Amino acid sequence: MNTLTPTLAALTDCIAPQLAAVDKLFAAELRSDLDCVNTLVKHVSRFRGKMLRPCLVLLAGKAAAASEGNGSPAELTEAHVTIATVVEMVHMATLVHDDVLDDAELRRKGATINHLRGNEAAVLLGDFLISHSYHLCASLGSQYASRQIARTTNIVCEGELLQIDNRNNLKLTEEVYFEIIKRKTASLCAACCRLGAYLSGASADVVERFETFGLSLGIAFQIQDDILDLVGDVSTVGKTLGSDIEKGKLTLPMIHFLKTAPREHGQLLVSLLESREPDKGEKIRNLILPSASIDYARDAARRHIDRARSAIADLPASEARKSLDTMAEFVVTRPM
Amino acid sequence: MNTLTPTLAALTDCIAPQLAAVDKLFAAELRSDLDCVNTLVKHVSRFRGKMLRPCLVLLAGKAAAASEGNGSPAELTEAHVTIATVVEMVHMATLVHDDVLDDAELRRKGATINHLRGNEAAVLLGDFLISHSYHLCASLGSQYASRQIARTTNIVCEGELLQIDNRNNLKLTEEVYFEIIKRKTASLCAACCRLGAYLSGASADVVERFETFGLSLGIAFQIQDDILDLVGDVSTVGKTLGSDIEKGKLTLPMIHFLKTAPREHGQLLVSLLESREPDKGEKIRNLILPSASIDYARDAARRHIDRARSAIADLPASEARKSLDTMAEFVVTRPM
Repeated sequence: MNTLTPTLAALTDCIAPQLAAVDKLFAAELRSDLDCVNTLVKHVSRFRGKMLRPCLVLLAGKAAAASEGNGSPAELTEAHVTIATVVEMVHMATLVHDDVLDDAELRRKGATINHLRGNEAAVLLGDFLISHSYHLCASLGSQYASRQIARTTNIVCEGELLQIDNRNNLKLTEEVYFEIIKRKTASLCAACCRLGAYLSGASADVVERFETFGLSLGIAFQIQDDILDLVGDVSTVGKTLGSDIEKGKLTLPMIHFLKTAPREHGQLLVSLLESREPDKGEKIRNLILPSASIDYARDAARRHIDRARSAIADLPASEARKSLDTMAEFVVTRPM
Repeated sequence: MNTLTPTLAALTDCIAPQLAAVDKLFAAELRSDLDCVNTLVKHVSRFRGKMLRPCLVLLAGKAAAASEGNGSPAELTEAHVTIATVVEMVHMATLVHDDVLDDAELRRKGATINHLRGNEAAVLLGDFLISHSYHLCASLGSQYASRQIARTTNIVCEGELLQIDNRNNLKLTEEVYFEIIKRKTASLCAACCRLGAYLSGASADVVERFETFGLSLGIAFQIQDDILDLVGDVSTVGKTLGSDIEKGKLTLPMIHFLKTAPREHGQLLVSLLESREPDKGEKIRNLILPSASIDYARDAARRHIDRARSAIADLPASEARKSLDTMAEFVVTRPM
């Protein structure tokens, strides 16, 4: 979940000051009295993403405030900035640890931490990021956000564990696939939107709508990411592709293909997945592209985006709500 | 910091019900709806330690309550049990991630998680443990403990990062060595004692005394651990020894030896440390054992234990305070 293009920058105009504050707080929270720590952190900061998750917190917060129409609507608080920073740290930590897991050599067109400094530094840097995320979260007045964030990271870990438990499982079902991506990816997006709205004092119903928005958006984003990993263009996407195949992770197009393609095609995919051919990614891509399986996965992503958009469709119009809506649409239309 | 013998069991008689409650809460907090997660957790639970850190929380809590002599003295609360469980999870997480780092094949005479299931499962299981520790901590009424725990894990990570930054640094100074062990080991022991006393409503002065106790105990414990790694007996200690040498970690006896031994001896140690000989651990042991460097390190550990004991010496006598005192003494007298 790392690719938002600059065309999306306009969507965040209404939260620009808060995004700048997130950047500042991110750096301040991670600053250490040890030079070696600062050097590592500086490196990880260089390949930060487009801050999708902080944007979700801030836009949901802004849209929820507008929808409540209370005394001082549409105002974001310091707590929003804090939580937006927390979720960015949580996300960075999962990226850094994912790189250990995936042994990825390219992340956002820069060297990954583990490639540069070894697995050990990557494990510790991820731990450092996650520790600081909780530390920052605990600076808030109440335990509510701390509890929600920790509950979410519990679920993210479970999703990752379920994923590696199903590595090389060629019988992976759609049901388990969705369970994995809901936990490992969508749950954090859901928490971002939930907390953003909650911190704006939104009603339980509105908080829940935003949570549904985030959850559905996250599911769609991961499906799209999985499609890109299979058939995307490395120069457009800007990170190692084909890593799902490399790591024995069955994704939605493959699951669908194995279930629906002619018997011989299915057997060919199985033997390719099980083989150690260096260019098997290319062969699998060429096998699946002409089938209906990519469209099948795209349709699934589209359905979740529709669900996301309709969850917040009835809320009062605001620039923030419009941005969330456009962002959701972009998830399924972004360049391949 | 994993070795307390059964002879110490008597020291924890006064906190036996709470230790049982920690066991129960530990299991309940980590229970998942996913079988694959429960299987991994079950494995890690099998090689749990002697719960030194939970004991520190509970004994400090009990001793502090006794020393306050308020309305209901010497009573531990549910919060004590919660924090005792939290620190055990934090400690388990660092052990699991240390195994990734060190590639240790033997931990507490059982297979390590990474050996059994691969580095990936070990990284994720560590993340799962740390996430649940924060989740559990956030169940308390106030943010105080959450903040303290997260601050401590920040420091522990820094200590580990400083350690790997000094890997193969044959010019490591005593000063940096102490900075490393203070952060990576002693800070958590200090937090255990601090929080235990705090939760008993102890005064700032008493809280600080317990923190000093924990910090000094932790430093001494790590020095002793480092001595054991160099010259201990694997069947007594029960885990992989010689791993510091293997991983290019200079410890106090080696630092002292390089500084004080005759020139040729020092050069021999350097060339052994830099060599890839399979039995270099044995040769280094035989080189350092006859020197004064082991005693030098033992004296340093002894000084910190004396500091620990004197920090709580003036507090009113109680079974819990006596247990802490005996435990401290044991750190520097435990079998090699």
